[in-house]
Amino acid sequence: MRALDLIVKKRQGDTLSQSEISFLIRGYVDGSIPEYQVSAFLMAVFFSGMTPEETGYLTREMIESGRTIDLQSLNTTFVDKHSTGGVGDKVSLILAPLAAACGAHVPMMSGRSLGHTGGTLDKLESISGYRTDLAPERFTEIIGECGFAMTGQSSDVVPADRQLYALRDVTGTVESVPLITSSILSKKFAEGADALIFDVKTGPGAFMKTREDARNLATSLVNTGKSLGKNVVAVLTRMDSPLGAKVGNFLEVEESMALLGCPAAIERVPSDNRSDDLMAVTLRLTAWMLVADGIAKSVAEAEERCREAISDGSAWSVMERNIRLQGGDPDAMIANFGTFRAPITGEITASRSGMLSAMDAYRVGMGGVYLGAGRNKADDDVYGDVGFEILHKPGATVHGGDPIIRVWGHTQEAVDQAVATVSEGIAIEDMGGGTVPTDMILEEISSL
Amino acid sequence: MRALDLIVKKRQGDTLSQSEISFLIRGYVDGSIPEYQVSAFLMAVFFSGMTPEETGYLTREMIESGRTIDLQSLNTTFVDKHSTGGVGDKVSLILAPLAAACGAHVPMMSGRSLGHTGGTLDKLESISGYRTDLAPERFTEIIGECGFAMTGQSSDVVPADRQLYALRDVTGTVESVPLITSSILSKKFAEGADALIFDVKTGPGAFMKTREDARNLATSLVNTGKSLGKNVVAVLTRMDSPLGAKVGNFLEVEESMALLGCPAAIERVPSDNRSDDLMAVTLRLTAWMLVADGIAKSVAEAEERCREAISDGSAWSVMERNIRLQGGDPDAMIANFGTFRAPITGEITASRSGMLSAMDAYRVGMGGVYLGAGRNKADDDVYGDVGFEILHKPGATVHGGDPIIRVWGHTQEAVDQAVATVSEGIAIEDMGGGTVPTDMILEEISSL
Repeated sequence: MRALDLIVKKRQGDTLSQSEISFLIRGYVDGSIPEYQVSAFLMAVFFSGMTPEETGYLTREMIESGRTIDLQSLNTTFVDKHSTGGVGDKVSLILAPLAAACGAHVPMMSGRSLGHTGGTLDKLESISGYRTDLAPERFTEIIGECGFAMTGQSSDVVPADRQLYALRDVTGTVESVPLITSSILSKKFAEGADALIFDVKTGPGAFMKTREDARNLATSLVNTGKSLGKNVVAVLTRMDSPLGAKVGNFLEVEESMALLGCPAAIERVPSDNRSDDLMAVTLRLTAWMLVADGIAKSVAEAEERCREAISDGSAWSVMERNIRLQGGDPDAMIANFGTFRAPITGEITASRSGMLSAMDAYRVGMGGVYLGAGRNKADDDVYGDVGFEILHKPGATVHGGDPIIRVWGHTQEAVDQAVATVSEGIAIEDMGGGTVPTDMILEEISSL
Repeated sequence: MRALDLIVKKRQGDTLSQSEISFLIRGYVDGSIPEYQVSAFLMAVFFSGMTPEETGYLTREMIESGRTIDLQSLNTTFVDKHSTGGVGDKVSLILAPLAAACGAHVPMMSGRSLGHTGGTLDKLESISGYRTDLAPERFTEIIGECGFAMTGQSSDVVPADRQLYALRDVTGTVESVPLITSSILSKKFAEGADALIFDVKTGPGAFMKTREDARNLATSLVNTGKSLGKNVVAVLTRMDSPLGAKVGNFLEVEESMALLGCPAAIERVPSDNRSDDLMAVTLRLTAWMLVADGIAKSVAEAEERCREAISDGSAWSVMERNIRLQGGDPDAMIANFGTFRAPITGEITASRSGMLSAMDAYRVGMGGVYLGAGRNKADDDVYGDVGFEILHKPGATVHGGDPIIRVWGHTQEAVDQAVATVSEGIAIEDMGGGTVPTDMILEEISSL
């Protein structure tokens, strides 16, 4: 077999066999196939695409390039969720303990913020003492004890994906649906998940700006998962404006704890209908996890169980236990509610009276990068105590001069930059000029 | 400027500027842009194409990467011909002296045979003593003395093309019209040609199997040449069956000398109507050279001048002079006419009576490789005295058992392999079952 022939085959739009894809990936990893052939192959994939079977072979090959997380000792099934990334997207912080409280086992490996989107690890680390660098054995133990654990990705999981992603990043081949699919799936399946729920976000604040692009990725994730014999569900959710009432690491922790039912959070930083969009997305994704894992028969039944787990205190109790198991201090976290804020404040106010018709999530995300809630480059520092509180969500009636968003930062310059950036994404229309869509669940694609 | 952005730009189908293409090629040549980015770019070009202007920028950049042949001392204009390669394609051996005899100056740099197509250098070297490794100064001198010279490509001409071609060869990006165009044009213009005539062959024995592919390349060559301010004409010619009566290095020299008007060749190895297809192509291409160079006003007038130059002996006289100037011995060549033949002979005979309807040029070319007339690999040896004489051309009436092709080789095995390979490409139909197309000039695309 020659790499050249496989490049030409893909260039001509032909389908590669499992052994051909295996030859390419193994040859790349062991250095026998040079990078210039792999990059030409990746560009051919960009144009010619891959079938779900080919994408499945690629995924399997990447999984087999490294270590897989062995959760067998727990003798159960595992279900996880992955989001393509959004602004104010704190779903994992609520969903993981909630699913665990309902009986699921969630081996969650998350990433850090990069660009305009936040990262679950950065949010968790704003809880005093919380560790996200768990050894594999400890990761497994914690899942056994409280039903879920949250950690960073281990460097020896899917090394082929790391290598391939680095090459894609410099050769203009990141934006290929089958390549994105196999990168995501290989990491998630290597981490031990049996079933996977995807939150494929679409809109100005998402990586997939159009519904069609989001649907293509969602379909590819589901069909490829199916070709690998796994239960996969993809939910397309709206990402026009930031999710929920807060954006920023500890600010998002606060909002999440209130929604999980933490009494101190409900009292001191109450969640209200500004979190409705976040909760709609979180409940639906968690419900699908329970259905995919066989815990519930229908999404409706599963959502009902989730609501009960919040109201009866069991969801918060699981989260509290997890925080202690991962080295965090729930009391210190609670003491920070409403007070852990950077010193310099700012405000975005309504320029006129009318209906708040848009709050561009991308601009809020980029504003967050100025504040240090997120990162421009992988080695930028992030702060826990900076960010935004959204006082009025799109669709609300505002009066000229009303504060719409409150801002916290460490320097006046950062706050000013954030205010300027976010303000440009705010639109106010005359009353009666139209409505703002509030349906969060746009499509659901399932292999179940 | 970043290579990554230019890759993405081309991937999206955008047009690159002169400075962007210059940045890429210079960066590749000086090593600042890694091969894996260049190969991804090349694959993006394969899919997205390039405008004639972009192809022109690429061509110019490749020319500027190395030395150009300085023919200025001759104080005239230069015109050359390039063929995309065929079987029995000895056009250059007739066309160069013929154009020179009509007053043109032809700085011809040729290649060697590879695969099923022959190479002009190998044919010339079957003439005793003929040198094809002329130093640039000698090349120029010989053009000054007899109107044309024929040599191999110098290694310091268009180094960027050599480097780029080597990368294309291993990354599945050879078959891209703009990349083929810039590779051909950069070499030819670096060699000093002011005007260029292209013989773009199409059919089973050509690289461009379909008329559409041939037309695309021809159009790209003409339009890109135009964007560079040069006179370019492309003639699409038929390459279904081998051109002329002979295939093989010295066999083709014999046929060419007879057609040029060499009295000894006409007497001892007479050319007859089996060379009509070859002569039709040669006259048309030579005529376009005279028109492009301003020597003749029309193709018809130019063809007439060519016929005269053959019949009045001036064409042969120019060739004889050139042979001496390039170190060859015309008398030794003449002594070899009809006698310089490898010892083992074979024959392909008609399997039945009827009309000879096909003689697959590709199979004849591959049969020639078995005999050692051509090469499979660049370092294979070739022989001057092997090859085929075609006794009946397609369209002829044959009787069962008639010899159709005579074969000469150095081993019985090679002759047997050649006979078997070529035989499979021979078809005989019932008389009256149809006709064989004999029009050789299919289309002409001119920027004049």
